[in-house]
Amino acid sequence: MKEIKAFIRPSEFNDVFGSLRNDGYCCVTVTDTEGTGRYSDPGELEYPSSKIPYMHSKMLKLEIISQDKDVNNIVEIIKKHGRTGVRGDGIICVIDVERSIHIRTGEEGEEILNMSK
Amino acid sequence: MKEIKAFIRPSEFNDVFGSLRNDGYCCVTVTDTEGTGRYSDPGELEYPSSKIPYMHSKMLKLEIISQDKDVNNIVEIIKKHGRTGVRGDGIICVIDVERSIHIRTGEEGEEILNMSK
Amino acid sequence: MKEIKAFIRPSEFNDVFGSLRNDGYCCVTVTDTEGTGRYSDPGELEYPSSKIPYMHSKMLKLEIISQDKDVNNIVEIIKKHGRTGVRGDGIICVIDVERSIHIRTGEEGEEILNMSK
Repeated sequence: MKEIKAFIRPSEFNDVFGSLRNDGYCCVTVTDTEGTGRYSDPGELEYPSSKIPYMHSKMLKLEIISQDKDVNNIVEIIKKHGRTGVRGDGIICVIDVERSIHIRTGEEGEEILNMSK
Repeated sequence: MKEIKAFIRPSEFNDVFGSLRNDGYCCVTVTDTEGTGRYSDPGELEYPSSKIPYMHSKMLKLEIISQDKDVNNIVEIIKKHGRTGVRGDGIICVIDVERSIHIRTGEEGEEILNMSK
Repeated sequence: MKEIKAFIRPSEFNDVFGSLRNDGYCCVTVTDTEGTGRYSDPGELEYPSSKIPYMHSKMLKLEIISQDKDVNNIVEIIKKHGRTGVRGDGIICVIDVERSIHIRTGEEGEEILNMSK
């Protein structure tokens, strides 16, 4: 089992999210974040604020807990639909997950992450 | 050392959090997130918004950095107190942590995560 | 590749962030969180709220996806500049990352995380 963590542009979220859903991946968690990068798109930059006194961008973090067999496909969907071609499109990373537990049923293991069609 | 990451219903937070504290687990970080799942509870669903143009739920993410020996107990507490029995109760996952460092003292290792009674 | 996740005081963010930038580390993601700890600083504590019915603190979570060779230096910077000496300064943890993918170019691997001077 893996955690797929993607930092994407808010403007691409609709396309990424819809494409994941269309491909049968139901379960995505979304968090508002702010970040600085080497190549943030000046057009979307936020001015320095009291919280972040540097030029920065609003980004969305997607977290998907996935079966091993779905990782490549999910990464490809995010890469394809999160891309604008302008510097600052963000990154995806993949982290190993040792255990996954379904709170309602108490079931544990890859089966609870079954999102495939 | 492990990271226990749980996505729970906001309505169950008080019970989960109080139970963790009562059992001696002091240290929990809480973040507001939004998510879509296969079985979100219709009664708690948010309507599509400009940010998430799909039916979705507000969830709370708990992050607990824990000693190995406490993982099972913490998972059981979240599973028991985060459960409503209605689809959409969320999941817990466990991820390995290689290093933990206490910022104030500079100490490193499992000892800084000692939360047990 | 590693994920460096740090929970720091909002008051120290400016110093931590500026020091990371000055040392050539461009890319940091910042999320607002709330947490309870053993030693939160009473002076910065939030009163119990409907969301968190316990005394708690606002914290900032920094996430940095880093090359292996930069981990020690980044940890040292956060430890040095995130420290006030008062209990409740927070912790840093390091988690292994299996894959990192650049959304714009599709490139994958440690090279996309090159932040060094």
